[in-house]
Amino acid sequence: MKILIINPNSDPEMTAAIERTALDFAAGDFEVDCRLTPGAPRFIETFEDELKAAPGMIRLLRDHHDHCDAFVIACHCDPNLDVLKEISRKPVVGIGEASMKIASMLGHRFSILSATRHSIPHKEDLVRKYHLEGMLASIRTAGEGVGALVDQDGYIRAARRAAEEDGAEVIVLGCAGMTRLDRVIQERLGVPVLDGVVCALIIAGGLAKYGLSTSRAGKYDPGD
Amino acid sequence: MKILIINPNSDPEMTAAIERTALDFAAGDFEVDCRLTPGAPRFIETFEDELKAAPGMIRLLRDHHDHCDAFVIACHCDPNLDVLKEISRKPVVGIGEASMKIASMLGHRFSILSATRHSIPHKEDLVRKYHLEGMLASIRTAGEGVGALVDQDGYIRAARRAAEEDGAEVIVLGCAGMTRLDRVIQERLGVPVLDGVVCALIIAGGLAKYGLSTSRAGKYDPGD
Amino acid sequence: MKILIINPNSDPEMTAAIERTALDFAAGDFEVDCRLTPGAPRFIETFEDELKAAPGMIRLLRDHHDHCDAFVIACHCDPNLDVLKEISRKPVVGIGEASMKIASMLGHRFSILSATRHSIPHKEDLVRKYHLEGMLASIRTAGEGVGALVDQDGYIRAARRAAEEDGAEVIVLGCAGMTRLDRVIQERLGVPVLDGVVCALIIAGGLAKYGLSTSRAGKYDPGD
Amino acid sequence: MKILIINPNSDPEMTAAIERTALDFAAGDFEVDCRLTPGAPRFIETFEDELKAAPGMIRLLRDHHDHCDAFVIACHCDPNLDVLKEISRKPVVGIGEASMKIASMLGHRFSILSATRHSIPHKEDLVRKYHLEGMLASIRTAGEGVGALVDQDGYIRAARRAAEEDGAEVIVLGCAGMTRLDRVIQERLGVPVLDGVVCALIIAGGLAKYGLSTSRAGKYDPGD
Amino acid sequence: MKILIINPNSDPEMTAAIERTALDFAAGDFEVDCRLTPGAPRFIETFEDELKAAPGMIRLLRDHHDHCDAFVIACHCDPNLDVLKEISRKPVVGIGEASMKIASMLGHRFSILSATRHSIPHKEDLVRKYHLEGMLASIRTAGEGVGALVDQDGYIRAARRAAEEDGAEVIVLGCAGMTRLDRVIQERLGVPVLDGVVCALIIAGGLAKYGLSTSRAGKYDPGD
Amino acid sequence: MKILIINPNSDPEMTAAIERTALDFAAGDFEVDCRLTPGAPRFIETFEDELKAAPGMIRLLRDHHDHCDAFVIACHCDPNLDVLKEISRKPVVGIGEASMKIASMLGHRFSILSATRHSIPHKEDLVRKYHLEGMLASIRTAGEGVGALVDQDGYIRAARRAAEEDGAEVIVLGCAGMTRLDRVIQERLGVPVLDGVVCALIIAGGLAKYGLSTSRAGKYDPGD
Repeated sequence: MKILIINPNSDPEMTAAIERTALDFAAGDFEVDCRLTPGAPRFIETFEDELKAAPGMIRLLRDHHDHCDAFVIACHCDPNLDVLKEISRKPVVGIGEASMKIASMLGHRFSILSATRHSIPHKEDLVRKYHLEGMLASIRTAGEGVGALVDQDGYIRAARRAAEEDGAEVIVLGCAGMTRLDRVIQERLGVPVLDGVVCALIIAGGLAKYGLSTSRAGKYDPGD
Repeated sequence: MKILIINPNSDPEMTAAIERTALDFAAGDFEVDCRLTPGAPRFIETFEDELKAAPGMIRLLRDHHDHCDAFVIACHCDPNLDVLKEISRKPVVGIGEASMKIASMLGHRFSILSATRHSIPHKEDLVRKYHLEGMLASIRTAGEGVGALVDQDGYIRAARRAAEEDGAEVIVLGCAGMTRLDRVIQERLGVPVLDGVVCALIIAGGLAKYGLSTSRAGKYDPGD
Repeated sequence: MKILIINPNSDPEMTAAIERTALDFAAGDFEVDCRLTPGAPRFIETFEDELKAAPGMIRLLRDHHDHCDAFVIACHCDPNLDVLKEISRKPVVGIGEASMKIASMLGHRFSILSATRHSIPHKEDLVRKYHLEGMLASIRTAGEGVGALVDQDGYIRAARRAAEEDGAEVIVLGCAGMTRLDRVIQERLGVPVLDGVVCALIIAGGLAKYGLSTSRAGKYDPGD
Repeated sequence: MKILIINPNSDPEMTAAIERTALDFAAGDFEVDCRLTPGAPRFIETFEDELKAAPGMIRLLRDHHDHCDAFVIACHCDPNLDVLKEISRKPVVGIGEASMKIASMLGHRFSILSATRHSIPHKEDLVRKYHLEGMLASIRTAGEGVGALVDQDGYIRAARRAAEEDGAEVIVLGCAGMTRLDRVIQERLGVPVLDGVVCALIIAGGLAKYGLSTSRAGKYDPGD
Repeated sequence: MKILIINPNSDPEMTAAIERTALDFAAGDFEVDCRLTPGAPRFIETFEDELKAAPGMIRLLRDHHDHCDAFVIACHCDPNLDVLKEISRKPVVGIGEASMKIASMLGHRFSILSATRHSIPHKEDLVRKYHLEGMLASIRTAGEGVGALVDQDGYIRAARRAAEEDGAEVIVLGCAGMTRLDRVIQERLGVPVLDGVVCALIIAGGLAKYGLSTSRAGKYDPGD
Repeated sequence: MKILIINPNSDPEMTAAIERTALDFAAGDFEVDCRLTPGAPRFIETFEDELKAAPGMIRLLRDHHDHCDAFVIACHCDPNLDVLKEISRKPVVGIGEASMKIASMLGHRFSILSATRHSIPHKEDLVRKYHLEGMLASIRTAGEGVGALVDQDGYIRAARRAAEEDGAEVIVLGCAGMTRLDRVIQERLGVPVLDGVVCALIIAGGLAKYGLSTSRAGKYDPGD
C-alpha cells in the first residue's frame, strides 16, 4: 500500500518535516510519498491562497492516482478536500477532518492550537462543517506570524491554558507545520495530543485496506 | 450606482435572461452590467466546475472593481463567494445567500426549487453554512437535467407540493436560470416567490448606498 | 415610494433623530415619514411596555396602510413585529431583524451594542428567534440607564472589546437611539457598524420595489 | 392553596370544561378558580387575538394576585405568558410549557395534537422557544375548524399515526378545549397522553408549595 | 400516596439529610421513604461507581414497587435513571432532570453548582441529554473534594458569580448532598435556588396523582 | 499488536462471525481475539441487558489488559463504552462510534440499518451523543425480531430505500450480527457500506500504533 501526502503549499522544509513524521508512523508497514504542490503559495492563509493551490493539487492527485492507494491533504484547513474527494475513486482524507474526528473519540472536548490568529474564523467554520461545535473547547494561538511555528514554549503554554481554563481533554495540532509537537506537549500535560498527519494516515490507510472510498452517490458525484 | 452581475458559468442565454431581470428591477434607478465568466464551464454542477470558474470570476471582479459599486454572483450555489468577498473592498452578494436570508424574513419556513437532484446536498450544505437549517421546509426538484430548466409546469407542481405538504410559506428559486418564474408561480400559489438576482440587487444596492462592505477584520482579511 | 417608520415608544427626540437618519439615507430616492407611537411608554424595556405600545402601533399601521408602501419598526427588540406582519398586506420590517441578517452577510460573527444590561436576555431571545446564535460574538453594554444612550465613548470602548476580545467582525447598534454612532465607531475601529434603521430601509424599500410582502400562507395568516 | 386558571379566550363552555378537569385533578387538595378573559376573542388564533386577550388577562392576574398562590394560563399556545411572569411575584405556568416539559420526561419523543392547521407554525415556534425541537416527533391535526374540537375519533386517528408513523412515545393535547381526551386516547393507544391543564397544575401547585416563583433577576425584571 | 427516594450511594448521613428535606416538603400530604443503596459506593463519581450502584437500586425499586406510587433517584447525575424507567410501571424521576426542567421554566438561563470539578463534563453531558444546552449559563464549583460539600460560603460565592458574571437567573443545586442550601443562597442572592429532591417530588407526586408513567412504547419498552 | 474484541452478548455464533470478519481484515497484520461476554444476555436489547453485560465486559478487559494493545466493543449500541474507556489505559473503541464517524467522512449523509424497530430510539440517542444528528439520513429496519438478522434481501431493500428516498450516500450496518452484509449490499447499490467491526479495528489499531489512548483529564478520569 502506498499513500500520497499532498502538502498544499510549496514549502520544501515543511514538506520534508511532514514526510519524516509519516515515515516514522508508517514504520515500513506501508509506503508514503509526500509532495509539495507546484504553483501553490508558500503558505495557505487566505481563500485566494486555497484557490491558487487547487490546480497543482489536482494535478498531483491525477498523476499519482493509478499507483497510489489513498491520498492525504496535509494542511489543517483541509483546502480543496471536497474537489479531491469528488475526482478520486480512492480514499482522500484531510488532516483537519481526521484529527478532529479522532479527537472526538478520545475525550469530552478538544482544543485546537492555531498557528495564526487569522486562521481562527476559518477553523471555526471547519469545526461547524464537521458538526463538531459541541465538542470544541477552544481554539488557541501561541502568537502571530510564521515565526510562531517554531515557538514550542508558546504552544505548550497555549495547550496548558486550553486544558486548565477551557476544559480541553484532548489537544489537536492545528497546522501540519507543528508536526513533532505532539509528543512534547503530551509529555508536559498528560493529555492526548494529535498530529493531523498521523490521524489522516490511520483513516486513509484503514479505508484503503478495507477497500472503501468516498461515496459517489450525491455530493461527490463527478457527473462523468 | 453601477452593479456588476457575474454569471459564474459561460452560458450566453442565461446571462442575457439574468440581465433582463436585473434591468427590469433596476428600472433605471441604477446601472447593471451582467457578464458571463470567460473560461467557466457551460453549467456549474460539481466542485471542479466551481474551481474552473474561479479565475474568470476573479478577473471580472478585478477588471470592474474601480468603476462598479457592488458585485452580485448570479449562481444559486454561491460559487467562489468567499474569495470574492475577500479580495474586494466593495459589497459582494451571492444570490443564494441574499434570497434565503430575505426569505427568512417573509414567513415561517421556505422551500428551494432545485434544477437538478445532484444539487440537493450542495444546497443543504449552503443552508447550513448560512445557519438556516431551522427555517428550511424542503428542497424540491421538478425533474432531472438541464432541460428541466424550462419545464415551468414541473416547477409549479414542485412549489405547490412544497407549500401544501412541506409547510413552505415562501418559495426560493434555486437557480439563476429560473428567472421570470417568480411571478408565474406566485400568481398560481399566492405565496411569495423569490428570484435570487433581485434579492441580491436589493442587498448589494443597499449596501453600496449605505457605504458598507465586507468586514476585513478576520475571516475575509486578504492579508495585504 | 413612501415608507412609514414607526418608533414604538413616545419619545419625540428619538423619533426626530431616527427620521434624520432615514432622510439622509433616502436622499430623496423615496419618501419617509417617522412617527412616535401615541399611548406608548417613553421607552420600551419590559414585556408590559411592548404590550402598551401595541394598540398605538397597530393604529399607525392601519391609518397609513393605503398611502404607504412599506413599514419599519424602529426599536431593536422588534416589538409587535409579528402582529404587524400579520395585519399588513405590505412589507413590515423590524430593525433588529434587518440589521442582524445583513450583519450575517458581512463577516464571520457580529456583536450587538445594548443600551441597558436589562435588554441582554431579550436580545439573546431575539437572536435565537432569528436562528443567529451561531453568528453572535457577544452582546455588550456601555453602562446602565438611559443616560448611557449618549455616552459615545462608552460605546466605542464596548465595540472595541467586542472586536478584540470576542471576535466580532461586524458591530450592530442595538438601539434606535444610537443612530449616528455607526460612522463614529466605524472610523475608529475599521469594521462595519450597522444602524438598524438604515438596514430596515434597505429591506423594506427593496421588498416594496420588488412587489413582495409577508407570506399569508400560515404563520401570518390573519384568518380574514 | 388556591390556583387561578386564566382561560385566555372568552368562551364560557371551554372555561367550564377546563374547570371540571382542574377540580377533578385537585380532588380537594387545593382550590381552583377558572375564569374566562373579559374582552378576549372567543378563540385565540392569531397574533392579534393574543394582543386582544392581554389586557383582560393582566387585569385578572392583578385582581386575584393577593388571594391566589399560583396562576395557570389555559391556552396551549401560552399567550402572554412572558408578561404575566414579569408582573407577578407568584408562579405563573403555561399549559403548553408545562405539558411539553413533562412529556419530555416520559419518553423519547412526543407529538402534539393541534386543533387547527393554522396553529402548526405557532406551535413549532413554541417548541423551539422551549428548546424541545429535538424531542418533537410531529404535530398532527384531526381536521379543520372549531368543529374539529369535538371530533374524538379524528384525534384518536391522529394520535395513532403519530405513535405508529412518527415515533411518538407520548401524546400532548395541543388545546385546552381537548380536555378529557387524555383518558380516551390513552386507553386506545397505550401511550401516555397529557392534558396541559393537569400538567400546569402539577408545576404551579408544586412551585407554590415550595415557595418559588419566576426569577426577577433579568428577563422578567419588571423594572419597578 | 407514598414515594420511595433512592439515594444511589451508601452514605447514611446524606440519606438522612435528603429524607429530612423530603419530609419537610411533603408536610404530611404524602409519605416518603428514603433509602441508601446497599452495595453502592460511598459516593458516585465515576462511570464504574454508577454501575456498582445499579444492582442495589434495581433491587430497591423492585422490592418497593407494589406498595409505592412513585420513585425518585436522589443523585444529581441521574445514575441508572433510564434502566429504572424501563423496569418500572410507575413514575421514576431523577433529581437532575426534574430540577433542570423546572429551572428552565423560571428564568432565561440557569447555572448548576457542582460539588467537584470532576463532575463538570458529566453534568455537561446530562444537560445535552436533556436538550438544555441553550439554557445553561454555567456550571460552577466551590472547590474540590467531599469536604467541599459543607462549605456553604464557597457555594454562595459560586452562585453569586454565576448570577453576576454568567447571566444565571436561576441556580440549581447540583448534588443531593447540598440539600438545605437552597434557602440560604436564595436569601443572599434573591434568585430562585432549586433543590433537586424537592423538584423531583413535585414531578413524581404529580405524575402519580395524575396516573401517568413512563411510556413503554419504544425507548423504555422492557420487552416483556 | 493484539486487539481484543469484546462481544457484549453471549451468543457464540455471532462471536465466531465477528471473529472471522476481524481476521479477514487483519490479514495477519495484527492479532485479534474475539470473546463473548460471560454472564451477558444472549442479545442486548434493553437498558437492563446492557447492565447485565457490564460485569463480564469489565472482567474481560481487566483480564486481557496487560497483553492486549487495544479493545473493541462489538455491539452497535456501544454498551458500557464509557466505563471501559474510563478503566483502561489503552484505546477502547465502540463499533457504533467508529462506524458512524468514518461514515461521516465518506459522504453527505448516512443511514443506519437496524436489526429491530426497538433499537431505533436507542440509535437516535447514540447519534445525538456523537453529535451526528445533522449527518443522519435515516434509520431503517428490515423487519422485526432476531430472525430478521439473516434476512439479507430485507436489508438490501432497506438500504436501497435509504439511498433512493432518504438521501443516504453511505450505509452503516447497525448490528455486529450483520457482518458480511457490507460487500453484498455495496455490490448491489454502489454506495459505501460500513461494517462497524472493521471500522473499530481501523481506529483501535491506528491509536495503538500511534501510542494514544483515552484522555484521563476529566470525563474519563478514573479517580485512582
